[in-house]
Amino acid sequence: MKFTAKQIAESLNGTVEGNPEIEVSSLSKIEEGKPGTLSFLANPKYTSYIYDTEASIVIVNEDFKPDKEIKATLIRVKDAYNSFAGLLELYQQAKGTPKGISEKAHIADSAKIGKDVYIGEFVSVGENSVVGDNTQIFPNTVIGNNCKIGSSTKIFAGVKIYDECVIGNKCTLHAGVVIGADGFGFAPTQDKNYKKIPQIGNVVLEDNVDIGANTCIDRATLGSTIIRKGAIIDNLVQIAHNVEIGENTAIAAQSGISGSTKIGKNCILAGQAGLAGHLTIANGTIITAQAGVGRNILKENGVYEGAPAFKHKDFRKSYIHFRRLDDLVNRVNELEKQLKEK
Amino acid sequence: MKFTAKQIAESLNGTVEGNPEIEVSSLSKIEEGKPGTLSFLANPKYTSYIYDTEASIVIVNEDFKPDKEIKATLIRVKDAYNSFAGLLELYQQAKGTPKGISEKAHIADSAKIGKDVYIGEFVSVGENSVVGDNTQIFPNTVIGNNCKIGSSTKIFAGVKIYDECVIGNKCTLHAGVVIGADGFGFAPTQDKNYKKIPQIGNVVLEDNVDIGANTCIDRATLGSTIIRKGAIIDNLVQIAHNVEIGENTAIAAQSGISGSTKIGKNCILAGQAGLAGHLTIANGTIITAQAGVGRNILKENGVYEGAPAFKHKDFRKSYIHFRRLDDLVNRVNELEKQLKEK
Amino acid sequence: MKFTAKQIAESLNGTVEGNPEIEVSSLSKIEEGKPGTLSFLANPKYTSYIYDTEASIVIVNEDFKPDKEIKATLIRVKDAYNSFAGLLELYQQAKGTPKGISEKAHIADSAKIGKDVYIGEFVSVGENSVVGDNTQIFPNTVIGNNCKIGSSTKIFAGVKIYDECVIGNKCTLHAGVVIGADGFGFAPTQDKNYKKIPQIGNVVLEDNVDIGANTCIDRATLGSTIIRKGAIIDNLVQIAHNVEIGENTAIAAQSGISGSTKIGKNCILAGQAGLAGHLTIANGTIITAQAGVGRNILKENGVYEGAPAFKHKDFRKSYIHFRRLDDLVNRVNELEKQLKEK
Repeated sequence: MKFTAKQIAESLNGTVEGNPEIEVSSLSKIEEGKPGTLSFLANPKYTSYIYDTEASIVIVNEDFKPDKEIKATLIRVKDAYNSFAGLLELYQQAKGTPKGISEKAHIADSAKIGKDVYIGEFVSVGENSVVGDNTQIFPNTVIGNNCKIGSSTKIFAGVKIYDECVIGNKCTLHAGVVIGADGFGFAPTQDKNYKKIPQIGNVVLEDNVDIGANTCIDRATLGSTIIRKGAIIDNLVQIAHNVEIGENTAIAAQSGISGSTKIGKNCILAGQAGLAGHLTIANGTIITAQAGVGRNILKENGVYEGAPAFKHKDFRKSYIHFRRLDDLVNRVNELEKQLKEK
Repeated sequence: MKFTAKQIAESLNGTVEGNPEIEVSSLSKIEEGKPGTLSFLANPKYTSYIYDTEASIVIVNEDFKPDKEIKATLIRVKDAYNSFAGLLELYQQAKGTPKGISEKAHIADSAKIGKDVYIGEFVSVGENSVVGDNTQIFPNTVIGNNCKIGSSTKIFAGVKIYDECVIGNKCTLHAGVVIGADGFGFAPTQDKNYKKIPQIGNVVLEDNVDIGANTCIDRATLGSTIIRKGAIIDNLVQIAHNVEIGENTAIAAQSGISGSTKIGKNCILAGQAGLAGHLTIANGTIITAQAGVGRNILKENGVYEGAPAFKHKDFRKSYIHFRRLDDLVNRVNELEKQLKEK
Repeated sequence: MKFTAKQIAESLNGTVEGNPEIEVSSLSKIEEGKPGTLSFLANPKYTSYIYDTEASIVIVNEDFKPDKEIKATLIRVKDAYNSFAGLLELYQQAKGTPKGISEKAHIADSAKIGKDVYIGEFVSVGENSVVGDNTQIFPNTVIGNNCKIGSSTKIFAGVKIYDECVIGNKCTLHAGVVIGADGFGFAPTQDKNYKKIPQIGNVVLEDNVDIGANTCIDRATLGSTIIRKGAIIDNLVQIAHNVEIGENTAIAAQSGISGSTKIGKNCILAGQAGLAGHLTIANGTIITAQAGVGRNILKENGVYEGAPAFKHKDFRKSYIHFRRLDDLVNRVNELEKQLKEK
């Protein structure tokens, strides 16, 4: 599909500056723009690229003032970033979505499958499980018995969902995700063996939850491990048994949350952060990358760094001194010397 | 299935306090107890919940003395925690276990399959591989050639076991586990490329080993990567080539062990810990969360923290000072000033 | 297959010392040598094992001088390590490689499959995807639509490759790898929800790239996430959207690279290292285990440690003082006391 600058400007309520008939068929980053592509400029850090980009069309903010000549045709809009994001969505929708149930899938007789679903090859859906309307399940995914999968949810290839787990509507589970494996619950015996504690709970994902590739969310010992609506979780994250993740909380890749910890709403965990078990983390808390949290955080909207973590600003102050610790030691050596001489 | 307080008390050798005919059909945590469920109180930290719990029955220790009125029927037993754990097991057993070999599985003609196994849809079992009696293999698991899988072992969905690997009896491998991928062995060449070193060894899991979801255990270059009996390993753990994990050692999620390191018996690695390669770690060693161990630990039963890790108590002492490093610097500033003035 | 010491010596251009007719059928490490196996001694650290090894034959360097009697037959060669590595390769090649396309695989009508490939059971290959000659795809792997897989590439069991991704020639992807899942791109909305940013780019692996088990490489928002030729990546690594990894760069297990970071050639990231987003890392940089890099590294061939990371040597100096911080505090206490007394 090709579109002219004029057509795009009309759909975005923008104005063309340059050749209104120039055509584009795909999207590009401004620093990698090629002829036949459309790009955008929103972040001033990237302004220098607009003078050299080979993109045929660039969407810019209304008030953008170039310093020199620009080869590309411009489309001026109110908010270049949002306009471009809208085009990204249109582009993705235009790719279409797979439909139909593969004959090579295995669906238990007692399972209930909604309308307009996609179920790919070598998928298995267990006894009494329910799949909602418009949901897509990509090849080689395994859904156990007594599961409930909502509507308009996307489950990519090779996901494994254990028995009795519940996935909401409009969720996305990326490839290799494991939902509902046993929590790591063992009781040490007197002869130093470990006795497994049965994990008879489940996992519940509310609506609009997004889970990254190869992330693991363990089932609860009793009750549910819960991911509240709108939470977004990146790749290779570990969520242990009986954890609760609050609404719209974001967790970056390779973070780990230990058993029974409750994280509030609108929190952010940066990459490779770790939280001990049985903690309460207040709404709006930010944990920086690689931090290790060992205590409750009860005050909202704080920022924490370090392992063990404490207040971000204090950590940064201490860390500056840590980097210069050799100087400090030398100064103390000198003080001792001077004092001896007096 | 429903049971009365009287029936449960009889099976646990306990005594009923309250309505002996009240019925329950499932189990709950005391803080989330609902009518029709049975809960327990063992940890005094949770005592406050017993006065408000909606659970119909609560198992308590013989000597439990309530401070105020309790709505729930109590069952007094010698050890409330153990009694409840026993009920958890009964509950899980009552769910039953899958049996039979799916027609949609692929089993090589030369493979030998034991009695009373379960092999799910889209499982493949390679040439000359052996699967023991009562073993369960869930859908989409791949077992290579010349593997040996013991008896009464549970291999959940989407596990991948490479050629020649050996899994013991009564092991559990959770979904997405990878056993026997090549170790990360490469020799740098003179022109700064890497030349792959063939990894012709295997992985051996002894009996009663438990492996968490998406954990990876690499095959040895030569010989075997070995997980000794009773070891328990959580999700997303990395075990490199030629590592040996001792009996009854517990490794929490996202920890990583580099090549050829030998960990003794009864050790504990907390989450996200990292161990360098070619190390020896003594029996009973505890490594705290996120610690990074770069040296041999030859003394038994020590506790280590930090990156690089040293003795836990010393780390904690240093870390308290690290948190107050700004104060220390100010004190040294002040000393220098005073000394100058003298 | 059995070979005599004489046969092996001839193929390696070496000389036999001991029984030229002694036979071996497999390879072993010198410290685990058993009768009927061939081992090698290259690293002087292992010299003590040669006097007791039960290996029938040991390959040693030409100039090796034993201190006492050796039971094993020796083969003296110019470079013992390289000779042994060559035998490892021969051993692996002798195992043979699987061939043919399983009838239980699902290959879209529009897909193009090269010559002499192996495609295992329950593999699915999507519409318009291309698989090169001599490539091996193990069971339960899922290849999406419009993918391009090169020649002589090995894709192990249960790999998931999303639509439009490109894998080069002579690559190895270990079990459970996920290529092309959506980058973790979300724009916060005014009501504190997250709005997903469509990720319409792809992932490109150039030739000779090696990816470890359960590693995730996300697709670009726009353009490509790129792994340059010869790069080697270990297990459970996270590579975010729009990252670029330079030629012959090595990344150890459980490391994570955040979005849009560009890593140069010949770099080394040790285990569990973390890099923030939008960074530039110069050629030849070494990042030590568990380090956290938050800034650009523009000078080549540096070594960095700590979280946040700084120069390795400086970190080590500071860390020595950190370990003794209690002493330093005591010294400052003492100085203050002395100064007060004066």
